[in-house]
Amino acid sequence: MNGPRTSVPHIAGTGAALPGDPVDNESLARLLGASARWIEDFTGNQARHFATDLATGDSSLTLTDLCEEAADAALADAGVDPGEIGFIVLGTATPDHLMPATVNLVADRLGIDQVPTYQLQSGCAGAIQALDTGCRLLRDADADDDLTGLVIGGDICNKHFALQQDFQRLPPNQLVNYMLFGDGAAAAVLSRRPRGHAVAVRRVLQRFVGLGRPPGQVIEWFGAADRDDGRPPAGEDYKAIEEYVPQLAEEIVRELAESVGWSLGELHHLLPPQLSGRMTRHIVERLDVPAHEVSCVATTGNNGNALPLLQLDRLMPLMREGERALCAAVESSKWLKGGLALEKVPVGADAA
Amino acid sequence: MNGPRTSVPHIAGTGAALPGDPVDNESLARLLGASARWIEDFTGNQARHFATDLATGDSSLTLTDLCEEAADAALADAGVDPGEIGFIVLGTATPDHLMPATVNLVADRLGIDQVPTYQLQSGCAGAIQALDTGCRLLRDADADDDLTGLVIGGDICNKHFALQQDFQRLPPNQLVNYMLFGDGAAAAVLSRRPRGHAVAVRRVLQRFVGLGRPPGQVIEWFGAADRDDGRPPAGEDYKAIEEYVPQLAEEIVRELAESVGWSLGELHHLLPPQLSGRMTRHIVERLDVPAHEVSCVATTGNNGNALPLLQLDRLMPLMREGERALCAAVESSKWLKGGLALEKVPVGADAA
Repeated sequence: MNGPRTSVPHIAGTGAALPGDPVDNESLARLLGASARWIEDFTGNQARHFATDLATGDSSLTLTDLCEEAADAALADAGVDPGEIGFIVLGTATPDHLMPATVNLVADRLGIDQVPTYQLQSGCAGAIQALDTGCRLLRDADADDDLTGLVIGGDICNKHFALQQDFQRLPPNQLVNYMLFGDGAAAAVLSRRPRGHAVAVRRVLQRFVGLGRPPGQVIEWFGAADRDDGRPPAGEDYKAIEEYVPQLAEEIVRELAESVGWSLGELHHLLPPQLSGRMTRHIVERLDVPAHEVSCVATTGNNGNALPLLQLDRLMPLMREGERALCAAVESSKWLKGGLALEKVPVGADAA
Repeated sequence: MNGPRTSVPHIAGTGAALPGDPVDNESLARLLGASARWIEDFTGNQARHFATDLATGDSSLTLTDLCEEAADAALADAGVDPGEIGFIVLGTATPDHLMPATVNLVADRLGIDQVPTYQLQSGCAGAIQALDTGCRLLRDADADDDLTGLVIGGDICNKHFALQQDFQRLPPNQLVNYMLFGDGAAAAVLSRRPRGHAVAVRRVLQRFVGLGRPPGQVIEWFGAADRDDGRPPAGEDYKAIEEYVPQLAEEIVRELAESVGWSLGELHHLLPPQLSGRMTRHIVERLDVPAHEVSCVATTGNNGNALPLLQLDRLMPLMREGERALCAAVESSKWLKGGLALEKVPVGADAA
């Protein structure tokens, strides 16, 4: 960081909410009328979670439900009471409604009132955008030293990807989404002072890099006026994603390391982008950084805004004092770079 | 503000984009098969703007289009080049897609790259939430002194409220939305140092106050899986809105004035909540503050996230050095309070 007034935000605790039992490739293959081997080869994923119960067809679980569960877990992990929470930031591509913002329904569930809330419309880099926003709130020149806030990311795909339908009618480019995506939420409690896990956020990288580049992913919403127009709900340019995401991931990791003056050879943990198990393997091989990999997508599916927070939830119990981690996330929608440089500090340390 | 490290963000310039010609009550009444007098009495509005051309039925104008136009106007007003913009924040309830976030399509149009972008899912207090986010980015302890950013708010309702249909089939509680709502966008350029209009943002009030209170407004989105289920796209609890919004408006104005130590008797300009012309009149009468009122909803319609920024666009040319203004916005979705305390300072003044 630059300048004398810098204060460093910290991750105090994390939590996750993955609905139901994991759905393995055999179960998904039966549902879709596809081959389990083909799903495995194409995605590199072994399982995913769906907010819809495959046996009963019940899809009444909402994003609000998952975010509440993840937030409760993060608060417990951090040892923080909901009454201490000074702000909530939620990142999602799939809010329960356009209004009210889901973040405010989650605040209501948690019994939180009279604090600023923010809901970011975001995708695979959304958790980084939400963490960036939370870190900026904590770095606000006017913030109190004991300010603590909640950052949540999550997505539920079943408003677009119904699991009770005739899959034989779906074109392959739509069927593929059922193999890649999953549902879930995850959360982190951030604090100005080191507490709980006391993982200092040394740097957040978060910016739009898509000038002049066509979108790699489009997800529509339908209104009352266009609900019958038959457009597909989602479209991806997989060729652009396969070409460009590994390059962006490499740029993120190198820029982050340089910005905090860390050698990649001494890095302890690497949290690579989580598009799919196969893509993540490819990215990690290309990066060739000798650090412990923390990934989740092969068993959670791509649940968008939850992913980097799910990785953090897996990272927290592994980190020892002085250890360093880099996290990289790429959003292919209109191309965003995201990343975090993390370092575990002693609780009570003055990290300013 | 509290504490020695405070820095005050400034509004450098503003701009607006209202599509097409204003649609007056006579034209709207003909379209809806209603009475112009009834529209006037019920809403207190004389006109609104629609992104759909009533003569041709063309609804190809997007939120991206309106936001680009408003941002261009704000940049010109501030005398700021797009290359100087260090961040973009967009507030909207009605993004063009779920992904990519519209803010990134706007960045692309403006030729802006490599900066953080944020899109807030928000409603009638959304412009305040977006301005709050922008002000916090400017107050970031790590921000450069010449940091300048763009804040945009806008909504297009025509994905839900198609203007080419048989209105006789619509129930009254849906028809009413066509009388209240409009389309539009507005923008502000914010700067750390005073430049352009040099209106200091002395205070931003922005928080969730809806604990335990049912939503006053719900706007749905439909996915591929539920596009046929016949649910209405929007629902309002007008009784709750009429009861609660004036009370919240009064609390906002009094809290803001107290927090900056201003007497309401000495206030120069008041920007009250803009739900409808009728509601705004009622709120202003109840507030009984002897200041010049800056309102727009009676001629723009309720265009959600654009409203407070539209009021700022009308305020800027009126403000003289030393003059003070208070702005209040209430979001009835799940109940949010928003407000601004503004004071015009000399350009080049050290407002820290």
